[in-house]
Amino acid sequence: MKATWIWYPGDFEVWLGNKFNNRRTERGAMFPPFWKQDSHWPTVVFRSAYDLEHEEVIAVWTEGEFNFSLDGKLLSPLSAPESSFWYEESDFYEGYRIRIPAGCHRLAFKVWNQKTPPALYVEGATIKSCSDWEVTYEDKIWIDENGKAHGSGIFVPAASWNFNDPGNTPSQYSLRWREQKPVSQQEMPGGRLYDFGRETFGHLDFRKPSGSGIAYIYYGESREEALDRDHCETLDTVKISNGLVHQNPGSKAFRYVYIEMRGKADYLLAMYEEYAPFDPDKSGSFRCSDEELNRIWQVSARTLELTTQEFFMDGIKRDRWVWSGDAIQSYLMNFYLHFDTECVKRTIRQLRGKDPVTAHVNTIMDYSFYWIDSVFRYHSYTGDSKFVKEMYPRMVTLMDYILGRTDDEGMAVGKGDDWVFVDWTDFPMSRRGALCFEQMLLTRALLAMMVCAVRSRDSKGIQYYLQRAKELNEKVKATFWDNDQHAFVHAKEGETMNRQVTRFPNIMAILFGVADSQQKQDIAEYVLLNPDVPPITTPYMRFYELEAFCRLERYELVLHEIKEYWGGMLREGATSFWEKYDPSEEGAQHYAMYGRPYGKSLCHAWGASPLYLLGRYFLGVYPTKPGYEEYEVRPVLAGMEWMEGDVPTPFGKIHVSVTPHEVVVVSDGGSGKLFIDDKEVWIPSRQEVRLKR
Amino acid sequence: MKATWIWYPGDFEVWLGNKFNNRRTERGAMFPPFWKQDSHWPTVVFRSAYDLEHEEVIAVWTEGEFNFSLDGKLLSPLSAPESSFWYEESDFYEGYRIRIPAGCHRLAFKVWNQKTPPALYVEGATIKSCSDWEVTYEDKIWIDENGKAHGSGIFVPAASWNFNDPGNTPSQYSLRWREQKPVSQQEMPGGRLYDFGRETFGHLDFRKPSGSGIAYIYYGESREEALDRDHCETLDTVKISNGLVHQNPGSKAFRYVYIEMRGKADYLLAMYEEYAPFDPDKSGSFRCSDEELNRIWQVSARTLELTTQEFFMDGIKRDRWVWSGDAIQSYLMNFYLHFDTECVKRTIRQLRGKDPVTAHVNTIMDYSFYWIDSVFRYHSYTGDSKFVKEMYPRMVTLMDYILGRTDDEGMAVGKGDDWVFVDWTDFPMSRRGALCFEQMLLTRALLAMMVCAVRSRDSKGIQYYLQRAKELNEKVKATFWDNDQHAFVHAKEGETMNRQVTRFPNIMAILFGVADSQQKQDIAEYVLLNPDVPPITTPYMRFYELEAFCRLERYELVLHEIKEYWGGMLREGATSFWEKYDPSEEGAQHYAMYGRPYGKSLCHAWGASPLYLLGRYFLGVYPTKPGYEEYEVRPVLAGMEWMEGDVPTPFGKIHVSVTPHEVVVVSDGGSGKLFIDDKEVWIPSRQEVRLKR
Repeated sequence: MKATWIWYPGDFEVWLGNKFNNRRTERGAMFPPFWKQDSHWPTVVFRSAYDLEHEEVIAVWTEGEFNFSLDGKLLSPLSAPESSFWYEESDFYEGYRIRIPAGCHRLAFKVWNQKTPPALYVEGATIKSCSDWEVTYEDKIWIDENGKAHGSGIFVPAASWNFNDPGNTPSQYSLRWREQKPVSQQEMPGGRLYDFGRETFGHLDFRKPSGSGIAYIYYGESREEALDRDHCETLDTVKISNGLVHQNPGSKAFRYVYIEMRGKADYLLAMYEEYAPFDPDKSGSFRCSDEELNRIWQVSARTLELTTQEFFMDGIKRDRWVWSGDAIQSYLMNFYLHFDTECVKRTIRQLRGKDPVTAHVNTIMDYSFYWIDSVFRYHSYTGDSKFVKEMYPRMVTLMDYILGRTDDEGMAVGKGDDWVFVDWTDFPMSRRGALCFEQMLLTRALLAMMVCAVRSRDSKGIQYYLQRAKELNEKVKATFWDNDQHAFVHAKEGETMNRQVTRFPNIMAILFGVADSQQKQDIAEYVLLNPDVPPITTPYMRFYELEAFCRLERYELVLHEIKEYWGGMLREGATSFWEKYDPSEEGAQHYAMYGRPYGKSLCHAWGASPLYLLGRYFLGVYPTKPGYEEYEVRPVLAGMEWMEGDVPTPFGKIHVSVTPHEVVVVSDGGSGKLFIDDKEVWIPSRQEVRLKR
Repeated sequence: MKATWIWYPGDFEVWLGNKFNNRRTERGAMFPPFWKQDSHWPTVVFRSAYDLEHEEVIAVWTEGEFNFSLDGKLLSPLSAPESSFWYEESDFYEGYRIRIPAGCHRLAFKVWNQKTPPALYVEGATIKSCSDWEVTYEDKIWIDENGKAHGSGIFVPAASWNFNDPGNTPSQYSLRWREQKPVSQQEMPGGRLYDFGRETFGHLDFRKPSGSGIAYIYYGESREEALDRDHCETLDTVKISNGLVHQNPGSKAFRYVYIEMRGKADYLLAMYEEYAPFDPDKSGSFRCSDEELNRIWQVSARTLELTTQEFFMDGIKRDRWVWSGDAIQSYLMNFYLHFDTECVKRTIRQLRGKDPVTAHVNTIMDYSFYWIDSVFRYHSYTGDSKFVKEMYPRMVTLMDYILGRTDDEGMAVGKGDDWVFVDWTDFPMSRRGALCFEQMLLTRALLAMMVCAVRSRDSKGIQYYLQRAKELNEKVKATFWDNDQHAFVHAKEGETMNRQVTRFPNIMAILFGVADSQQKQDIAEYVLLNPDVPPITTPYMRFYELEAFCRLERYELVLHEIKEYWGGMLREGATSFWEKYDPSEEGAQHYAMYGRPYGKSLCHAWGASPLYLLGRYFLGVYPTKPGYEEYEVRPVLAGMEWMEGDVPTPFGKIHVSVTPHEVVVVSDGGSGKLFIDDKEVWIPSRQEVRLKR
């Protein structure tokens, strides 16, 4: 076993999240989020116990100032060099050295660091810091007047990741870089326009600088944006004097860069793309007979890769924050692409931050519900109960906050500054009162609480959340189902029903199993297939709508929609998928949003949903017991001549290959069932299953 | 009006408190507290609105990265130099410059700083940052897809102090320094012993260094401690090489220093005493015919001055943390010495830290009650309702925590890791179950909540806390008063009464008016004057005991006790007053505590209580309306031939001079009443009142 850096769970994410979110800029101005930012615990205690056969000398590195107690006794670092505890100032790589005698011993390090999370690395022959160690932010051990120690704080398992070297400290973490060069450049009247060929994210590199001047840099996801100095969303300056570049600009999202030079300086331009590494051998894939679908899958993958950074972010150009509603979709896509569980955990921790809860997650009510659901979803795909136990206390306090704001009927209503989002809509839709859509998300969140209560052995919680979920479910069905309109209607505002029919609650009624089978058919006919019900315009809610169609087994319709909507963006030249797409718009109209000509994100995580839809409903692979301990494969060609692909799992991959004549499944583990043409076949681990049709 | 640095209320104290508490060392090892340490909000928004007659250019300094919005629109700092927002990198004193047009404008600065509290300084012709500005840690302003802004966070008044210059930033705050030289030095076999003549606090200064070597420094509050290298509480090393001192040691408390030099180096030793400045013209004083009392008052003043630092601390040598039970006594003494209201506010804020409440203040149940009471006491002496309003939300969450841990009868019981302190006791005393003493403190805290609810206009709170206080008061009297023992007995443990009689609850019964007049007489006779009830051995609880005797008008007894107990320490050579004093001990026995030979603090804030007793009960001055708007003077000579002194108030001083023949009172403000020999005389502001007896 190797030693590794350890810290208080969630603190790395809270700290990194602030850095991450605050890197957002708007025309050069720093632009932090409008919700509360938290801090790591500045002072924590790490502890462990060892039974040593032999004396051993441990080396200690910390991020922060520290003290050390052996068996409850604080050791003095100012003892003479011949004593057990000393430090060679000259060589960081020596660390502090402490001699631990043979026998049973309790070790405790208290570390203080206001700026970055307190972290510890200890390495001895057998003593090694790792996630078996425990940590607390209040040890509560007090000494009475006679010198006797009392009390003990609540310790939790320490967090770690992959910082396995003393010099590779958590606070130095960054994404990886790879060089990219422009595919073309064009001299313009006032400057030079560079095209990097496709959407990218990273920082420019000014090479072979000469002369002196200031480069005014205008970034564009589109050519139009880069050339519009007054309205492009991101910009920068770089000063070159006497052939020296003062400071490279920060990371930005762009395809095009337009640079005007004031003064007399020249340079060659390249950039370093920043990316989160992944293992292609463990990643998902999809290929089929339809080249447009293949291209959609590839651009979706590119979109998700660009938005997979320190955290799953929504849009890489303008927004650059972590959003709960966007993130849960990224998690689901990710489970069919790179299965990056660490990034999922980081994002979940970052979004939740610390107690007390003073607002909904991202201030959005729906996003609190999605956040709770995301822990359940994570567990379904990974089977990682340890993480559920870590998050459960914060799930409880968030649910306390949510339930503390429900109305007399136990329904969630927007209060004060709560943002009730649902979706961006082009039609009038009130967000007042109890929205049916929100109650369905709350019911789902209550059920997620119940499942996580099981994993955390909170028997009172199991009963309580189940009861609340049942009651709310009954109330929702009784209140919002409209027999005349054959649909769940929009909202209850005080005593008044708002009988507007929108797609939102009806989609969720299908996905969350609220609708019975007759209601499902009604919803399909009267809502989802009804052109009079205003269409969904964001890929965000389209994700759920298309998933609902899959649940209704309208697979051909879904493939058609994917080709229309995502294919439409490709036909507009997209190299990554957009925040929103309206086929009726033309040219630069596509780039406008938020009242700004280039406000729309052209690389937005929620645009990558074909990754999920194709893996989950066409390759048809999904877990039926947490972590794919058991799973099902229900492939659907839906008009494709053939398809094949891989779905990543905790134990490796599940490969599926389908033609009208044959289905082949090979899995690296787990116990699966293949369903095809009313046949059901068991899929053993590591044995090819080949089924003729 | 001058501009001043502003920040989020309490954040300066939270951040400074961590630095302060973590400066404690134990034989060179850093020794942070065992309770939760919080952080400042890393990202906050400052805002203000101005109606400008003329355009003005403001200069902006921040601690942290920032952005600026004018009328809700974010300004770009990368605009060309001819635009309104620029920055001259070369000169910090220029700050950022922003041109604000004439007319009504809303200004908002968002500042991010992970390491030290985000702070802002803005100076223009009329626009100046000050505590009229508002601040929030979550502005909750979100922009919809059409670019429209929604929402608004909860803003509170910004905090400020005396950082009135851009270069004098809050994060650079330190105490002041003054040079002190040893009064004697003595060559010893292995080193050199320095005596600085009296207890002091500060850092050593190695002057005229020559040669090379390492100085091993052993500090002592006593000569014995400094010479005991293996057991002295604080020590240090200083490296001198080739006549250069590598780093001066950190601040310590000591009178003696013993230094052993390894190697061949020499130096001259001085020290810089660190102190909180005060205005002698606004300070309290006391002089009387008894020189021993005068010396006691002076050493008390020295003790309080040494323990008045960034915060009111308890002991300056070993402990160096901020403790709520100690601090409330410091506040009361301070109101009769320097009336340093800023240090009181800082200490109250620091002790409370941030939500969520995860433990009692300092983990001690009694200390939570004292903390709540301290806000009320502060208000009584200062009349500062603004501060009460600032603290009230945190009073409520702390009281929620307290009441969430009461038993079925609404009584406070120690749970889990709660530390139930009461006092250090030399006799067996259980801390289990519902202690009568703790219920009396809780009753008092509930009444303090009620008063602060009035100031904060929380009408529900007023009713609720009053009701809980009344109920608890009735229950305490019915449960704990023992007619046979004529005393409040110790505790109720489950269904069993613990009928031990101690002084603690009986003292509080008198101070908080729980006891009726017959009970008071009983308590005096059967408890306080009863030698069979174990005596109090700490100046901490002796503070309240002597105050109780004052309430019982046993003034001669109190003066006698002061001369015995505090006079006893003086006779042992004390230059500041101790954490604990047992007249029966001898020599170095006095220095032992906590199982360590020099564990006792020889300069402990709670040792300075004669400042309060003499000012409050002998000069007899105290406010009867908040902030001395009205006050009373009830002087008591109690055997002294004469006494005179000053009591500081928000408006200046109240001077009192008393002989058996005459009383003279002069007050700088307020409306007072002088009570003497059954006479009552009105004291107008700024007019001498001279009353012959």
